[in-house]
Amino acid sequence: RFFSALADVDCSIAAIAQGSSERSISAVIAQVDGPRAMAHVHRKCFGTTEIVELLVAGVGTVGGELLRQIHQQAPKLRAHGLDLRVCAIANSRNSLVAPEGVALDGWKARLETSTERFTLDTYRGWARARRPGRPIFVDCTSSEDVALGYPALMAAGLHVVTANKKANSGRQDHWRALRETASRHQRKFLYETNVGAGLPVIDTLKNMLRTGDTVHRVEGILSGSLSFILGLTEQGVPLSKAVGTAMEKGFTEPDPRDDLEGTDVARKVLILARELGRTLELEEVTLASLLPEEFDATGPLPDFLARLPQADGIFQQRVDAYRKEGKVLRYVGSVGPEGVRVGLVPVPLEHPLAAVKGGENALSFLSERYSPTPLVIRGYGAGAAVTAAGVLADVLRLVEGPLP
Amino acid sequence: RFFSALADVDCSIAAIAQGSSERSISAVIAQVDGPRAMAHVHRKCFGTTEIVELLVAGVGTVGGELLRQIHQQAPKLRAHGLDLRVCAIANSRNSLVAPEGVALDGWKARLETSTERFTLDTYRGWARARRPGRPIFVDCTSSEDVALGYPALMAAGLHVVTANKKANSGRQDHWRALRETASRHQRKFLYETNVGAGLPVIDTLKNMLRTGDTVHRVEGILSGSLSFILGLTEQGVPLSKAVGTAMEKGFTEPDPRDDLEGTDVARKVLILARELGRTLELEEVTLASLLPEEFDATGPLPDFLARLPQADGIFQQRVDAYRKEGKVLRYVGSVGPEGVRVGLVPVPLEHPLAAVKGGENALSFLSERYSPTPLVIRGYGAGAAVTAAGVLADVLRLVEGPLP
Repeated sequence: RFFSALADVDCSIAAIAQGSSERSISAVIAQVDGPRAMAHVHRKCFGTTEIVELLVAGVGTVGGELLRQIHQQAPKLRAHGLDLRVCAIANSRNSLVAPEGVALDGWKARLETSTERFTLDTYRGWARARRPGRPIFVDCTSSEDVALGYPALMAAGLHVVTANKKANSGRQDHWRALRETASRHQRKFLYETNVGAGLPVIDTLKNMLRTGDTVHRVEGILSGSLSFILGLTEQGVPLSKAVGTAMEKGFTEPDPRDDLEGTDVARKVLILARELGRTLELEEVTLASLLPEEFDATGPLPDFLARLPQADGIFQQRVDAYRKEGKVLRYVGSVGPEGVRVGLVPVPLEHPLAAVKGGENALSFLSERYSPTPLVIRGYGAGAAVTAAGVLADVLRLVEGPLP
Repeated sequence: RFFSALADVDCSIAAIAQGSSERSISAVIAQVDGPRAMAHVHRKCFGTTEIVELLVAGVGTVGGELLRQIHQQAPKLRAHGLDLRVCAIANSRNSLVAPEGVALDGWKARLETSTERFTLDTYRGWARARRPGRPIFVDCTSSEDVALGYPALMAAGLHVVTANKKANSGRQDHWRALRETASRHQRKFLYETNVGAGLPVIDTLKNMLRTGDTVHRVEGILSGSLSFILGLTEQGVPLSKAVGTAMEKGFTEPDPRDDLEGTDVARKVLILARELGRTLELEEVTLASLLPEEFDATGPLPDFLARLPQADGIFQQRVDAYRKEGKVLRYVGSVGPEGVRVGLVPVPLEHPLAAVKGGENALSFLSERYSPTPLVIRGYGAGAAVTAAGVLADVLRLVEGPLP
């Protein structure tokens, strides 16, 4: 079987030796054939699969859903020669660790009662122990501290896949250092879900640039919660009531001002701008809140919510005025010749962004090649299922072996 | 510099030896560090870049544009450690071959006057010579014979990137054998441009399936030429005249019936259906021509074109009748519970496919996760620039090193 496996991959054998106990056999092959032959021989002789170790930080809605998806997909992936092994699950308090893989049924209850703690240093030690496989650190937190740890993790040998926007929307010098570290240590750093969750945004943009297209303008609706709120106001629902409904449905951050003021969209636009080669900081993104300028949005949350109905009238007037012109208001982030901007934009009804429904994201890429008609990607850009799937797709992108 | 490079990638050294001439130095390192350390040491000590050899078959509009894009991008890619080297350029008659890379300025004139011929066997011999690098066979032909050669090329060690639809829309048993060969020899087979040119269609679908989403329905406008012709008929241009204009602009095949009868769309839908796990042959795709059933589309091309105005009346009546219902006709390919179908479909004006303009493609993926609102990708789905860029993106997907 050993020799037939070598023949399978068309590998010439230079010399053969057998151990005196007849328990071992060796073959000398050309160096270039090594990795290919080794992988195939192992798979064929021992039925082994490639082991990929995952260390998952953050087990909120996205992290939890990711574990569910891995648990569900594991048998199929194993049938295709890939053993995705979650070796550590951690939140800021507890952790579950198992070198041979944490059992993924009932992890939640076991994590709650676990007394172990898993820190970035533990991850580094883990990677340095150089177990077989290609360990991947998967960040499903939104912690800035965790993001600041990526370079150290990469230096220790871990690839990084992240749903956390903090690293890419932090200081520009950190952004650059992160890429230099990844390149020096030949580690991968993937973050497709940073913009548009499961939509193929970053990869599409990278492919355009790598193949020599010139991107003139990227614009999009990048907040599901704001597109939901604007959809309701178009149906005549007062702004304050629309915000309340979005809060109840869990579509907003606990403090809805984090959405309404546009910082989350600004982070996403900053990430897109940097992909396009721009050098800038978050503070340099031109940012206009969805709330009317005249409205005072400061103070504690209950005060803000009690005051919000005062904004309803002005906001509704704007919606109505634009409707008369055949336009709708969309909260748009854009990177173009005019700069990097986030704010409310009146959009004609026939514009692709006008049709974007509650909860959807949409991105439009206008380039040398996609011009005058842009490339448009549209679909749910938030939610645990599509975001976790985007993270899992990044993990699978890191894997070489044959996949379904 | 050697040791600092090893330190860079965090590689422990077990033993060191220096040759007596002081011209060589060796270090023993852990096996798992091997490939990573080797690549980095080479890059740092010799300033070397990773060499990827391309053998390009077919130099029509797509192949020619691909060579132009590679020529244009080469300096940028080299700066990122990647040396894309076109070692052979061939059409069915002539070829240019150069192990160190064919010079890409003025290749066209040199190819015309070349007396060399490069056959599939030459490619195989090339790959078997096991030069360093990872040779990739790039098929920009539309030849069935070339497509039938992929398994032999993979067995010889070549990865395959193709813009040619013939392999994926040929017999189902060949489709399966191709994948088995690729898996056995651990070669990659990439064909993103088979559906929607530069649009991220196949990769998006694969990611949905790999991460455990269930795809209920894929439908789309997959022919730029037919969407152009339908756009004109909506503006009141008679069908025969619209076909004539599309022919003049070079949007159709030399015989426009190849487009009008839907075979090209049927091939694309077949490819999508097989990605979704269906087992079927091209003949099993339910196919309706864009031309009215009553119309006789047989015979030599000039006769057909002379007769085509007879179809104008019936076609215009249909367009007008649907317009009264608020619908437009779109030539749609779909894979869903009802089967695998290609034909004219009346689509309400508010449907995402109704807005698709001349020359654009659009695909909609309805799945467990993207439901009730589908994921939609839209943009130019044909044309040399975007198709060649899609092929180049596939080539770059095969490459491991750090990329822009």
